[in-house]
Amino acid sequence: MTFRTAVMGAGSWGTVFAKLLRDAGGDVTVWGRRASVVADINERGENPDYLPGVALPGGLRATTDPAEALAGADFVALAVPAQTLRENLTSWLPHLPPGAVLVSLMKGVELGSSRLMSEVIQEVADVPRERIAVFCGPNLAREIASGEPGAAVAACVDEAAARRLQEATMTPYFRVYTTTDVVGCELGGAVKNIVALCVGMSVGLGFGASTQALLMTRGLAEIARLGAALGADEHTFAGLAGMGDLIATCSSPLSRNRTFGENLGRGMTLEEVVAVTKQTAEGVKSAEPVLELARKHGVEMPIAEAVAAVLYHDMPIKDAAISLISRSPKPERYGV
Amino acid sequence: MTFRTAVMGAGSWGTVFAKLLRDAGGDVTVWGRRASVVADINERGENPDYLPGVALPGGLRATTDPAEALAGADFVALAVPAQTLRENLTSWLPHLPPGAVLVSLMKGVELGSSRLMSEVIQEVADVPRERIAVFCGPNLAREIASGEPGAAVAACVDEAAARRLQEATMTPYFRVYTTTDVVGCELGGAVKNIVALCVGMSVGLGFGASTQALLMTRGLAEIARLGAALGADEHTFAGLAGMGDLIATCSSPLSRNRTFGENLGRGMTLEEVVAVTKQTAEGVKSAEPVLELARKHGVEMPIAEAVAAVLYHDMPIKDAAISLISRSPKPERYGV
Repeated sequence: MTFRTAVMGAGSWGTVFAKLLRDAGGDVTVWGRRASVVADINERGENPDYLPGVALPGGLRATTDPAEALAGADFVALAVPAQTLRENLTSWLPHLPPGAVLVSLMKGVELGSSRLMSEVIQEVADVPRERIAVFCGPNLAREIASGEPGAAVAACVDEAAARRLQEATMTPYFRVYTTTDVVGCELGGAVKNIVALCVGMSVGLGFGASTQALLMTRGLAEIARLGAALGADEHTFAGLAGMGDLIATCSSPLSRNRTFGENLGRGMTLEEVVAVTKQTAEGVKSAEPVLELARKHGVEMPIAEAVAAVLYHDMPIKDAAISLISRSPKPERYGV
Repeated sequence: MTFRTAVMGAGSWGTVFAKLLRDAGGDVTVWGRRASVVADINERGENPDYLPGVALPGGLRATTDPAEALAGADFVALAVPAQTLRENLTSWLPHLPPGAVLVSLMKGVELGSSRLMSEVIQEVADVPRERIAVFCGPNLAREIASGEPGAAVAACVDEAAARRLQEATMTPYFRVYTTTDVVGCELGGAVKNIVALCVGMSVGLGFGASTQALLMTRGLAEIARLGAALGADEHTFAGLAGMGDLIATCSSPLSRNRTFGENLGRGMTLEEVVAVTKQTAEGVKSAEPVLELARKHGVEMPIAEAVAAVLYHDMPIKDAAISLISRSPKPERYGV
């Protein structure tokens, strides 16, 4: 069947998601805040601000009117910056089609409340969990826009809804799996940036692939420990939303968080790194709320603690590295 | 307490393992086949053939006499090429100290028998599983030799033996975890090279971090499926011997398997790649025995099948890529 989707947000990943839906044969309208971006999509079939050079498929419409975008949608994909979700979604409430599944494309933790995006959606829209989905995986927008092979997970506690989202997004170049573990999928995306900061620091210190692989693996172990405490399925962390997204973020030299950490590792001060970084690295903002969550649930997160000590408490990076390696010997599965 | 270890094999990883034991305060003798390597270690404190420029710690002895190396050893670390283990171990049997724990440092599957290294050890030495351990993790020899932060898993069905091995190998720059899942640890190391071939092919085709992360994640999922069928603990695959080792091998441009795949992806024929590759890439040899094992246990391994189709059945790489992406839609945890 043909699904109708409103993609709320015309940034790079929102635009790529719209392209994916369209390539899969769906009916798609993109809502954008800025009239110039909307006009470019409608008139030139391109989003030059976020995806220059990528030809968007025919039949993709854009609008600045949320009511027009949302009318009759089966899926409402939310692709705005994480910290603006609450305000945006509140303003869209009058136009949300009853029965639509709200799909989060966002990664992050709400500052102040330490809530995951699906939790903010549930609170603001007051819909049952069966109508909230998450779509995530190891996908760099530009690569998927170019048709490189990619994959993602469609997560919803209602398995039938997850399968509909899978059907709406699978194309010859993009493979989608289903799961019912929404919280696990979100947590991977929210915490990976802290690990990427740490991997970046190790690269800046001159360490190689062994140390990076060690940090990613043990970083995922602490994400899984936190996930277990929050009721997530630990298997999710071994999948595309956990391990996959973590590897893509930690490996790509294009990752803002990795680059931020790398500059710290090379000896720049926090102030110097902030000055050369145009956009704030997400992990710098999320380290504290994530650690708060971990402490509340009695979960040890030594890598996140080390990153926070370097960022907020002036711990020299080399001391942080030594503190990580010389912890008391443990079985590998400790805490899971 | 101070442990005495015989490291049987003076290649790069055997030498680094000996350095690790010595740095941890142990009593270590390295057995080497070649008199020149043994003399270099004893007289120059260096192994210029395998680790040029790395100063070995004082007190590290080497010998060409297996009886001398093995005398009184608590641990016998086996660090010979996987396909020579059976013959070497057979010749050392008369000198094996009763009660010593045999530690495999090797990665691979025995050709012909499709046996893992611990299985070959058990068969040849006829010792109980409680005396067979595996030491593995995401470690590139040269990086750990330079004192970069690293970590590994000490695996033995006897947890007390795993803890002794942990105690014998932990240093300020190297962290060791314990597990009782020997088979899971070995399987990760044996199958990762096939995934690295596939990641290399994707790099050669010009694909980026998204596709690589996807292949590593789904590659690990099929290793875990095979592991579950062989009685391994699936958690092991999310750890250093699974995910960790896989990332290190797939990410490092120094990896022979990745480079082999990359050349294929760039359009070279198999014959051309073999001609420019000095040593055979391990994954090329292990793809068939691993698939044999998988078929015997009814396990689907689509990535390994695609690699084998390219290597042995002339399937064009682009067709293999498409066959992987366009399989029937599935839940992410299918088969685990």
